[in-house]
Amino acid sequence: MNPLKFVKDRPLDLIAIGRLCIDLNANETNRPMEETSTFTKYVGGSPANIAIGSARLGQKTGFIGKVSNDQMGRFITNYLEKNDIDTKGVTTDLTGAVTGLAFTEIKSPDDCSILMYRDNVADLKLHPYDVDEDYIKQSKALLISGTALAKSPSREAVFVALEYAEKHEVTVFFDLDYRPYTWTDEAETAVYYNLAAEKCNVIIGTREEFDMMEKLLNVEESDDHFTASRWFSYHSDLVVIKHGDAGSIAYTKDNKSHRSGIFQTNVLKTFGAGDSYASAFIYGLMNGKEVSEAMKLGSASASIVISRHSCSDAMPTEEELENHMETAVYQQS
Amino acid sequence: MNPLKFVKDRPLDLIAIGRLCIDLNANETNRPMEETSTFTKYVGGSPANIAIGSARLGQKTGFIGKVSNDQMGRFITNYLEKNDIDTKGVTTDLTGAVTGLAFTEIKSPDDCSILMYRDNVADLKLHPYDVDEDYIKQSKALLISGTALAKSPSREAVFVALEYAEKHEVTVFFDLDYRPYTWTDEAETAVYYNLAAEKCNVIIGTREEFDMMEKLLNVEESDDHFTASRWFSYHSDLVVIKHGDAGSIAYTKDNKSHRSGIFQTNVLKTFGAGDSYASAFIYGLMNGKEVSEAMKLGSASASIVISRHSCSDAMPTEEELENHMETAVYQQS
Amino acid sequence: MNPLKFVKDRPLDLIAIGRLCIDLNANETNRPMEETSTFTKYVGGSPANIAIGSARLGQKTGFIGKVSNDQMGRFITNYLEKNDIDTKGVTTDLTGAVTGLAFTEIKSPDDCSILMYRDNVADLKLHPYDVDEDYIKQSKALLISGTALAKSPSREAVFVALEYAEKHEVTVFFDLDYRPYTWTDEAETAVYYNLAAEKCNVIIGTREEFDMMEKLLNVEESDDHFTASRWFSYHSDLVVIKHGDAGSIAYTKDNKSHRSGIFQTNVLKTFGAGDSYASAFIYGLMNGKEVSEAMKLGSASASIVISRHSCSDAMPTEEELENHMETAVYQQS
Amino acid sequence: MNPLKFVKDRPLDLIAIGRLCIDLNANETNRPMEETSTFTKYVGGSPANIAIGSARLGQKTGFIGKVSNDQMGRFITNYLEKNDIDTKGVTTDLTGAVTGLAFTEIKSPDDCSILMYRDNVADLKLHPYDVDEDYIKQSKALLISGTALAKSPSREAVFVALEYAEKHEVTVFFDLDYRPYTWTDEAETAVYYNLAAEKCNVIIGTREEFDMMEKLLNVEESDDHFTASRWFSYHSDLVVIKHGDAGSIAYTKDNKSHRSGIFQTNVLKTFGAGDSYASAFIYGLMNGKEVSEAMKLGSASASIVISRHSCSDAMPTEEELENHMETAVYQQS
Repeated sequence: MNPLKFVKDRPLDLIAIGRLCIDLNANETNRPMEETSTFTKYVGGSPANIAIGSARLGQKTGFIGKVSNDQMGRFITNYLEKNDIDTKGVTTDLTGAVTGLAFTEIKSPDDCSILMYRDNVADLKLHPYDVDEDYIKQSKALLISGTALAKSPSREAVFVALEYAEKHEVTVFFDLDYRPYTWTDEAETAVYYNLAAEKCNVIIGTREEFDMMEKLLNVEESDDHFTASRWFSYHSDLVVIKHGDAGSIAYTKDNKSHRSGIFQTNVLKTFGAGDSYASAFIYGLMNGKEVSEAMKLGSASASIVISRHSCSDAMPTEEELENHMETAVYQQS
Repeated sequence: MNPLKFVKDRPLDLIAIGRLCIDLNANETNRPMEETSTFTKYVGGSPANIAIGSARLGQKTGFIGKVSNDQMGRFITNYLEKNDIDTKGVTTDLTGAVTGLAFTEIKSPDDCSILMYRDNVADLKLHPYDVDEDYIKQSKALLISGTALAKSPSREAVFVALEYAEKHEVTVFFDLDYRPYTWTDEAETAVYYNLAAEKCNVIIGTREEFDMMEKLLNVEESDDHFTASRWFSYHSDLVVIKHGDAGSIAYTKDNKSHRSGIFQTNVLKTFGAGDSYASAFIYGLMNGKEVSEAMKLGSASASIVISRHSCSDAMPTEEELENHMETAVYQQS
Repeated sequence: MNPLKFVKDRPLDLIAIGRLCIDLNANETNRPMEETSTFTKYVGGSPANIAIGSARLGQKTGFIGKVSNDQMGRFITNYLEKNDIDTKGVTTDLTGAVTGLAFTEIKSPDDCSILMYRDNVADLKLHPYDVDEDYIKQSKALLISGTALAKSPSREAVFVALEYAEKHEVTVFFDLDYRPYTWTDEAETAVYYNLAAEKCNVIIGTREEFDMMEKLLNVEESDDHFTASRWFSYHSDLVVIKHGDAGSIAYTKDNKSHRSGIFQTNVLKTFGAGDSYASAFIYGLMNGKEVSEAMKLGSASASIVISRHSCSDAMPTEEELENHMETAVYQQS
Repeated sequence: MNPLKFVKDRPLDLIAIGRLCIDLNANETNRPMEETSTFTKYVGGSPANIAIGSARLGQKTGFIGKVSNDQMGRFITNYLEKNDIDTKGVTTDLTGAVTGLAFTEIKSPDDCSILMYRDNVADLKLHPYDVDEDYIKQSKALLISGTALAKSPSREAVFVALEYAEKHEVTVFFDLDYRPYTWTDEAETAVYYNLAAEKCNVIIGTREEFDMMEKLLNVEESDDHFTASRWFSYHSDLVVIKHGDAGSIAYTKDNKSHRSGIFQTNVLKTFGAGDSYASAFIYGLMNGKEVSEAMKLGSASASIVISRHSCSDAMPTEEELENHMETAVYQQS
């Protein structure tokens, strides 16, 4: 059963809010970054990737975010528009902020790392006044991502978006996406993750992310069922907990759990797995699929993206996703 | 009817959390501060004043806060202890922060102003890790005050305290106490005031403070009934809205409103009116008084404090409060 | 012999540049500040004190500094004007800075300490653009003090003043006045003290202050003669090195050294000794006294100020200074 | 005549101090950066480029700087070592700083721009304690560059290096290299440029850079002869003033001026012209060439580098430089 209901007849299916940045992926792979010499530039950032994935799958998608007033910022906005993403909610920083960068290093398919530039970045300058109530109420769903909660004023902008979403019955997806480097400490992170999660309909995260959130409350044991139930007592209808290689488990408010498997693929790198999963999973749920079927779509999308060089530009279209599901080897977990 | 229930048999009646600072009140009154030459030092800060008022009225009171590692910090802790306030939750800053200062200027009873020192203050360094779940669960009630939400990490410490309070059924009072000088902008303020207010049982503020909170949500008209109802849909049982000279109005969840009047007094200055009101009002509610009766206690306490030189040191004992109610002229609004 | 020459026929004798702040001196002495309850407000800051001392002794004195846009700032400017100090060079901060504070604690005449408020202070916001070449060239001498070098933009403002002084043959006095609390580390301090000292005609400091400056250059032994000679190779004509109770020694470029003694007095506190010494010493030098005679004037002024409650307001007039020299017991060191 | 003397018999010819960063040069040229997609990574930063140029020309070269504790930092140190530059003075930042980045955009040979990442960069964390007196005294010459003066503690580290250089008769070259983006305002810049220039033997800059330095002193007209003379009154023996297409002019203390011309070349981009000029000019002066001959070497090196894709990696060897001087068309200005 699909536990989610979406308001009908709105011009947009999904608005994503938060980080817009640049990935600089080393062209030379299987070596440390000290030994790479050229990089290819892609749009990046978890909510950007999810929005791009969503648009590729045919969803009417918009974005609320802030870009730098330079070539990097314009490249991002141009790319979103080329992918049919509505950028009315994308504003330009005028304080001299830069675009966040992620240099990727692929030592082997299993040993990937990222070198981040996150000082004075435009995406975290998104201000509550940049968030328009009228825009949010034009969408069936809103996607938030944890990184946008890392600093003021972006943090407050997300909370304002959540208020508007609640007021206008916009379904909220929360992809936890916890990246320690922009946060002061775990207590700060947990406070805002918990406050935001209280207001979301669907929460997607790893077991470690949920543990971090519960540690603040002195919860000592990891228990998926407890975790999910806690959020059902607020506004959640669906909680997805990822266990890495051991697969994901989704809980619905009716106390049922749902699992899916993975598709075999030639892994180039692990980046982008979570974002591609989320975009196809949301697409499935918004198109009436059962939870486990939506999870399978997520897995299929992830298996495509991790075999390719980029995260954003690698996102599959509906047709590619269908072909892949028909041809790739699927392994139920 | 008193709409509040308190857990019984706990060692503390009330814990206040937040600002501990120093008031430096000009000894020479009725002139601008340029012309004053001596000052008297008192403990200050809204939650400190309320805690002192509470303890003077015989409530078992504790405090969670942070003081500077100097003579000012030690003066504050000593003063709280002399007033029978439990200071187990008061920690000492070790980063070189100072104690916040408030120099008061009394040009006339109606024209008072404050010159604040709020840079690098110890009280805003209170950290989530300084807030102890076991301590909070020893109290029947928790008082929070808006100023502690103004900056990290104090902001997060308050949210952690609210989580523990909810977990252990500690009744939460929220004295809005909005002081613009420590906040970046109104949107930031409104976001955190709203998030905190959602978790409180009793909210006390001026009409202007509630307006600031509602403006973020594009609410355009001030309407006390709407304001109160909004919070009843979260956790509130009682909302007090102050209208300055026009008196205060309290709403209870049963949709009733309650009013009280004021006691005539010789006004020396207006500082401390709100804190003394809150301390006696809370004392009344915690001791089973009707709402309007508790409001009358609040008014009586305020009329005592505004006739005296300090805020904290002027707080009345039970006996003083009773005497005043018997002797002062009361005027129902 | 007096080694200094001053340009004649300028409207001002001395301009001081730098810190303008407030001293809050405990009225109750011989106890820790935790036990004091009232304070008296005075203008403070080393160059402010020296300027006040200078004006009291009849010198035409001006000031270049920045005050906060509040009652404290106006109090300072008013006080300077009442003391016949020209305040054309005193500008008002418009960024929300506060006036620096120094709470003094007098446990005993030998055990005094200061609690400083130096965050976001107006005096350190003095900007190069606030320093007017035309104003500086109206003075015979300029006094700088180390604290103004502690932070940008005040640091750069002082260097600009030094450029103008050099250009217009204004004699420069440098009172080292090293206060660790506003500096990042000793290396930073030593760099700017050395750069400034290179441009000064008279340098006055304690042995410890000169040691700090030399440590950066890996000078390992304290040697007054070496210290003085080093500065004679730049622009100095006179270097005064203070050895606490062991008295001061002054070196002149002709390789001679000069000493003076102290006047007996009833010490209330030690604050202000250095500033009162400097003001009368400069007054002596600018009025043609021999170096040792100027030093004696400095000692006399110091012995007056340390017997009184304030630093600034205690500065003697010419008449008081003369009387004191006639009546007080002098002890040659 | 070559006005410079160098101490003999030291293990190093030149130590450069300051910025070590990464250039990311767009591989696709003649288009805006919004339309480029790949970048090649090179070591960059003015003193780094000059050091590399110096080493390529056979000078024994060392570096004092700070790199980030990541792949970028290690890439820089490795590259310097591969170019036979001594890196004993290169320390690693441990505070989480990043390597500065310069993304270059080549719209046309005449229209090049740079997008800088200069927040929280490792090179500006160089501390006075990282500068070793014993290391500096092993070199005949020291090269400083203006960017290292932009922020503390790197600013102070440079002044300490200048103190040690003076103490040990190390000849100091100052390449002004003014980049507004790291500075607060022009007054701050001019203060430190002037203080540093006072201590240098050779100063190389554009007319605009010298104007910025003189504006602080209210000098109103640009006059090369005045500019040069001002520095001769401090420690300078040679001042080079660049007038863009109109060529450069060098002044020596004997009041003579020297000019050189340019070599024709196929310009790819203008970046790196100044650094390659400086490295070959210094090489010429340190090898006994006449001033005008050294300037010609500078021009030759510049004409090579601006025809190639990088700045650092394009620096010519002695052999390449000689070949170029024999074959390229030279045009005396």
